[in-house]
Amino acid sequence: MITLDKNSYKGTRDFYPEDLRVRKYIFAKWSEMLESFGFDEYATPLLEPLNIFAAKSGEEIVNEQTYSFEDRGGRRLAIRPEMTPSVSRLIAARRQELAYPARLYSIANFMRYERAQRGREREFWQVNADVFGDDSIYADAEIVYLADKSLRKFGADKSMFEIRINDRHLIDFIMKEYLGLDDGKTRSLMKLLDKINKISDADFNRQAEIIFGQATGSILPRVRSLVDAKTLDMIPQKVQDSAEFKRVLDLFVLLEELGVETAIFDITLMRGLDYYTGVVFEVFDLDKNNNRSMFGGGRYDGLVGLFGVEPIGAVGFAVGYTTTELFLQNHKLLPKFKNETDIYIALVDQNCFKAAFELAEKLRGEGRPIELDSRDVKLDKKFKTAEKKGIGKMIIFGETEAKSGEYEIKELSKSKP
Amino acid sequence: MITLDKNSYKGTRDFYPEDLRVRKYIFAKWSEMLESFGFDEYATPLLEPLNIFAAKSGEEIVNEQTYSFEDRGGRRLAIRPEMTPSVSRLIAARRQELAYPARLYSIANFMRYERAQRGREREFWQVNADVFGDDSIYADAEIVYLADKSLRKFGADKSMFEIRINDRHLIDFIMKEYLGLDDGKTRSLMKLLDKINKISDADFNRQAEIIFGQATGSILPRVRSLVDAKTLDMIPQKVQDSAEFKRVLDLFVLLEELGVETAIFDITLMRGLDYYTGVVFEVFDLDKNNNRSMFGGGRYDGLVGLFGVEPIGAVGFAVGYTTTELFLQNHKLLPKFKNETDIYIALVDQNCFKAAFELAEKLRGEGRPIELDSRDVKLDKKFKTAEKKGIGKMIIFGETEAKSGEYEIKELSKSKP
Repeated sequence: MITLDKNSYKGTRDFYPEDLRVRKYIFAKWSEMLESFGFDEYATPLLEPLNIFAAKSGEEIVNEQTYSFEDRGGRRLAIRPEMTPSVSRLIAARRQELAYPARLYSIANFMRYERAQRGREREFWQVNADVFGDDSIYADAEIVYLADKSLRKFGADKSMFEIRINDRHLIDFIMKEYLGLDDGKTRSLMKLLDKINKISDADFNRQAEIIFGQATGSILPRVRSLVDAKTLDMIPQKVQDSAEFKRVLDLFVLLEELGVETAIFDITLMRGLDYYTGVVFEVFDLDKNNNRSMFGGGRYDGLVGLFGVEPIGAVGFAVGYTTTELFLQNHKLLPKFKNETDIYIALVDQNCFKAAFELAEKLRGEGRPIELDSRDVKLDKKFKTAEKKGIGKMIIFGETEAKSGEYEIKELSKSKP
Repeated sequence: MITLDKNSYKGTRDFYPEDLRVRKYIFAKWSEMLESFGFDEYATPLLEPLNIFAAKSGEEIVNEQTYSFEDRGGRRLAIRPEMTPSVSRLIAARRQELAYPARLYSIANFMRYERAQRGREREFWQVNADVFGDDSIYADAEIVYLADKSLRKFGADKSMFEIRINDRHLIDFIMKEYLGLDDGKTRSLMKLLDKINKISDADFNRQAEIIFGQATGSILPRVRSLVDAKTLDMIPQKVQDSAEFKRVLDLFVLLEELGVETAIFDITLMRGLDYYTGVVFEVFDLDKNNNRSMFGGGRYDGLVGLFGVEPIGAVGFAVGYTTTELFLQNHKLLPKFKNETDIYIALVDQNCFKAAFELAEKLRGEGRPIELDSRDVKLDKKFKTAEKKGIGKMIIFGETEAKSGEYEIKELSKSKP
């Protein structure tokens, strides 16, 4: 007979109880936060028709990273690689019946075929929170506020992370009106800006020359004046005069009013700009050893309409579990968890099983989780089991206890058999 | 541009907030019950190597019902169709380190390619609860007790369901020792017994004759004496004298001591007997319009050993979500659920956003979920949204409230704009 492999599939993870306790703690905090803001939880199927992702997620995810296959009826399906197409489908299906603004969240698993590495898994969990049907800047501000709070809730502060914010409309204005670029050059410059932090200034200028050619002399200084602007008031005046800039400024005013201290403007943030239609943001770990993007979000007004209904605006964000777990570990923000079972009852006389079980049920009724060990093994072994499980208290139960109805609760750290 | 389909994939289900509230309620009850018995929650990956199911689940599930495919690295994978192979793999991987008895549970989704019908879905959710490393009859009794309690916890009583119990060792004894059958005839009789409730007595006898041939006259009366035994004391004496019968009797004595009133002995229960190695049980809805098997469980001592470690005994059960939801609906055991958001704050002056947000945060801090609607729309529309969402209270917030710090909480069912 073949011996089966004890390991989980590559890039996936087994959550033993001590691992799952951490996950449940983090999910519970997020649920609590979102529900306190009036968000309602929903859930969608694991599998979706492949084309709902093809319509949105971009070529890389669908062609290279999606777990897709045909079912036995020839339908092309995918294990969801992300949530927004599914939740947009739900909104579209009840476009008329739903109450807006609809505040929705989910906690779900996803799969992408990626090279497995620390913090990046093939099966991963995310919370997704979205507001549908509120096009106001207040909805944008609330989402950024919640992204900030989703780390602050664990004790993280502004020394540990920052939220880099940009805006699709502003970028469009800059590319077309301020720099006078056509669509092709716009795409090239956006790609270049996306890697600005990974290349040298000289490299940046060299590649800009390739894009702009003879116009480099007139365009590059304006590009530099933009990327060198570390705050909003350093942005060139012509850009500051635009309505697009005004909306970004308004958002930052609101965020300051709400007490968000981690938000900074970043004109080079290009994440998902082919998809987001308004504000876009990304949360970065400020730890020097792990200075990377953790999660993000933004406004995407075009997705619901792809399902053949009148479009409806949406703004949201998604936080991954593993990234957050690593962030909280690195910054020492995770509490210690222990077994929540309160008392281990060691039955030492099987004839007294009924009385022991009744005691266990009585204590459970008082809200105390109880494990009853009725095996015919030495007491010594039962002590070891309770200690290995990290249960703090024990009742040794036999004929004396059954007859008298009295029992002693031993503290396990102090007593030895 | 192609319009995408708004429906979920066939046999799967979208859970809108009102649907998910029911699911969360049922899962929370099960978690609470199992944790009060010292069960620890774990989670396993969605995908597993196909061969861990092939080794156990039986041909039908693997060949016809499993969603299986090759990943981009040529690995043969399956979306899990059930939990026991995965949890057995977890136990095997830490065979030495774990504390026994290990009481483990999970709440997870599964997929099987089935003809979609009421109560049977391609993607379905189950709670799985198992005890590893306790071979005693007390573990068997605890599992049957919990299966019973998993419905009683919602208010179900013995008029609504029953638990039919059989035992693999007892069936082996009956087939070999009491009826003197070889393996082939044993399999044929087990198949016949499995459908005894669906065919007439005459049909049963005719098919028994085909199996037993010339020996029918001596064997068939003994088979009838078994299947006609509705209680344990009606079982033929020769069977009652066996050690195998004794263990079943002991289990029923224990279940009576524990107050389980739904358990009945059923020698014709053949569910999964190619897989279970001891007690086996199945829970039936007693509703005449829906008299069918809902869920089941039993002892399976052979699975962990398939992963190349010393075998370890296991007994457990799994309850499906959809079946339970239907059962609770039919028997009118589900409470009404409502939106848990406490107050809808309708901002009527966007200049007062900061003050409204601060009030919302203050109330959230007091444990009251608050939704803040800051859109620039008429108050009338905000009332409608709150009512459509089923939120019971509203604060209308404008300059007066911002300046005075005072506000009125309106009961929405009574007030109209």
